[in-house]
Amino acid sequence: MSQDFPADSVGLVTPRQQHFDQPLELDCGQSLPEFDLVYESYGTLNEDRSNAILVAHALSGSHHAAGYHAGAHKPGWWEACIGPGKPIDTNRFFVVCSNNLGGCHGSTGPLSTNPLTGRPYGAAFPIVTVRDWVRSQARLADALGIQRWAAVIGGSLGGMQAMQWAIDYPDRIAHAVVIAGAPKLSAQNIAFNEVARQAILTDPEFHEGHYADEGVIPRRGLALARMIGHITYLSDDAMRAKFGRELREGKINFNYEVEFQVESYLRHQGQSFVDRFDATTYLLMTKALDYFDPAANFDDDLSRALAGVKAGFLVLSFTSDWRFPPSRSREIVKALLDTDKSVSYADIVAHHGHDAFLMPVPEYLGIFSAYMDRVGREVGA
Amino acid sequence: MSQDFPADSVGLVTPRQQHFDQPLELDCGQSLPEFDLVYESYGTLNEDRSNAILVAHALSGSHHAAGYHAGAHKPGWWEACIGPGKPIDTNRFFVVCSNNLGGCHGSTGPLSTNPLTGRPYGAAFPIVTVRDWVRSQARLADALGIQRWAAVIGGSLGGMQAMQWAIDYPDRIAHAVVIAGAPKLSAQNIAFNEVARQAILTDPEFHEGHYADEGVIPRRGLALARMIGHITYLSDDAMRAKFGRELREGKINFNYEVEFQVESYLRHQGQSFVDRFDATTYLLMTKALDYFDPAANFDDDLSRALAGVKAGFLVLSFTSDWRFPPSRSREIVKALLDTDKSVSYADIVAHHGHDAFLMPVPEYLGIFSAYMDRVGREVGA
Repeated sequence: MSQDFPADSVGLVTPRQQHFDQPLELDCGQSLPEFDLVYESYGTLNEDRSNAILVAHALSGSHHAAGYHAGAHKPGWWEACIGPGKPIDTNRFFVVCSNNLGGCHGSTGPLSTNPLTGRPYGAAFPIVTVRDWVRSQARLADALGIQRWAAVIGGSLGGMQAMQWAIDYPDRIAHAVVIAGAPKLSAQNIAFNEVARQAILTDPEFHEGHYADEGVIPRRGLALARMIGHITYLSDDAMRAKFGRELREGKINFNYEVEFQVESYLRHQGQSFVDRFDATTYLLMTKALDYFDPAANFDDDLSRALAGVKAGFLVLSFTSDWRFPPSRSREIVKALLDTDKSVSYADIVAHHGHDAFLMPVPEYLGIFSAYMDRVGREVGA
Repeated sequence: MSQDFPADSVGLVTPRQQHFDQPLELDCGQSLPEFDLVYESYGTLNEDRSNAILVAHALSGSHHAAGYHAGAHKPGWWEACIGPGKPIDTNRFFVVCSNNLGGCHGSTGPLSTNPLTGRPYGAAFPIVTVRDWVRSQARLADALGIQRWAAVIGGSLGGMQAMQWAIDYPDRIAHAVVIAGAPKLSAQNIAFNEVARQAILTDPEFHEGHYADEGVIPRRGLALARMIGHITYLSDDAMRAKFGRELREGKINFNYEVEFQVESYLRHQGQSFVDRFDATTYLLMTKALDYFDPAANFDDDLSRALAGVKAGFLVLSFTSDWRFPPSRSREIVKALLDTDKSVSYADIVAHHGHDAFLMPVPEYLGIFSAYMDRVGREVGA
């Protein structure tokens, strides 16, 4: 039994697990006595271990960024950008992507067993921050023998991790690629996250976070959270192009069943998400987003927060992204320029909205590839 | 015991009830055997009954558009625009505002008793359309002896009713004022409505619409629906100005309680809405919004739909409105120009978002007043 893969895919991939037996101190003041990170890697680490790239995932992502799991027909979430000949070229780079702490795909999170109680963490899992993630990823780098990443790369929440890496470990990251990112959430961003959280928290089957003990899932709340999120990932134009006002049965039925195609799409997105994602992980991820604000300890002066950065930056935004609009990326670019850092920036014309960072938009791939070529040449890859 | 009212307020007002004992045919094919409309009026009808203005309310509005109910400290929802010397000047006009059919403030709706069963309609209340509302308002005009409105005026969903009046009763409306409106919803608009509906429909206490029989209210779902709505009523800028990233206790607490001010605001909006609004009415109103599309029967050609219109139009939009952006108003203006109708249009600089139509924005009040002065002069008011 064999699978055929596209020539520009990394093909069959198998996740690996890394156990860490030393405690991890968290920003919230608690610590995890021990933890696991599940990760995938693509490409080959070169002899001087200089060609390693860390890819950080966004809210609903996982360590499965590229290639195919055995028997699966759907590739990883960033198949558009990772593979032989792609912007993150696996012929040149050794690419690592781990599931974030607090995740629900294998890394230690709410569904894991708390070693102190022998039962699932559930709601007792501490709220983690982007800094905590970066700290845990540094442990993974240590375990893999990677002293310095050639680049840390991410879109959306992943881009925030790339920024935080450049701030917290200036000597361990050569380049930061921040795609469709923001230096912190706006009040509107927080508002959308809060409604999504309220949908989960007020679902009677949430049971104050102990739903696993009760053998149930807060399906309704998690589906609603995902539906709300999805609206913010797509531009108004993209929705118009994709669905318009098309009616599923060609006529109005005067009831509350699915009538417009966009309703059918949203309900499907909500339902299918429930089968692959954990509600408490969703809560944690949105909190990490809300809390991210590297300038907060520097009188809201982002350029001061970035003063110690040594990495070169590539910042990319998309014209139709209204979740993290281009103006938010420009704040990052401006702060880097103000403190005299190396930065390349492009605002890419794309109609997809925030989700554009996952799409094979030619201008995007072209600029991304050109920058990564420079990253590769610097390390002889 | 007496109340003091501001000099530019209509002061104390008392709602009135109008019963209609003839059936009303609805777009869905059903009919209401009889119905009631609750309404308020301000100002005095002149001798030739030519100075009457109909104000149509939006999604969560009611017949209480201006003035104060006995003992109440909060005025009607459009106090900014209705009163002596205000754009809709009650020294000149006789102003009528009724609660829409299907509403929850006194007009026949889901909470009313179905005369055929002797029990509350609940989920059995038929889905009504903007055309149905206009048809019922024409009955009210008949009852009040008003042959022709000097103007029909509304913001948002109210603006859609003004448009529909001009289309369906060209001889009974002299002017239509359409504020922060749209000729039909976009896919994104429908998507937001659908998530709000799903929040209500999937609330276990919705009981398929028979929650009144069960003595409960789908509080969680209705609060979520309102929170989602509220985000779309405010601009990103307005939220930033109002809340920024301010923390209620000045620090992050690493839990799921209210932390940011915007969270506190949203939760309050959601909770207080539950005490004054009905969940099934919310469903009905969002459906009426989704279905509104006067061009649908004219090959999507709005100018053909407007061909028979005789009313003069004032169309107003607000720069920061992203629910119904200025481009949506311009579609209406363009269609009116294409079929050679009389139209005035202004895109008003305001940072409040969609809610600007409720605010005393000076440029808005100035343009609105100037147009209404013309309306008044035409009828000798």
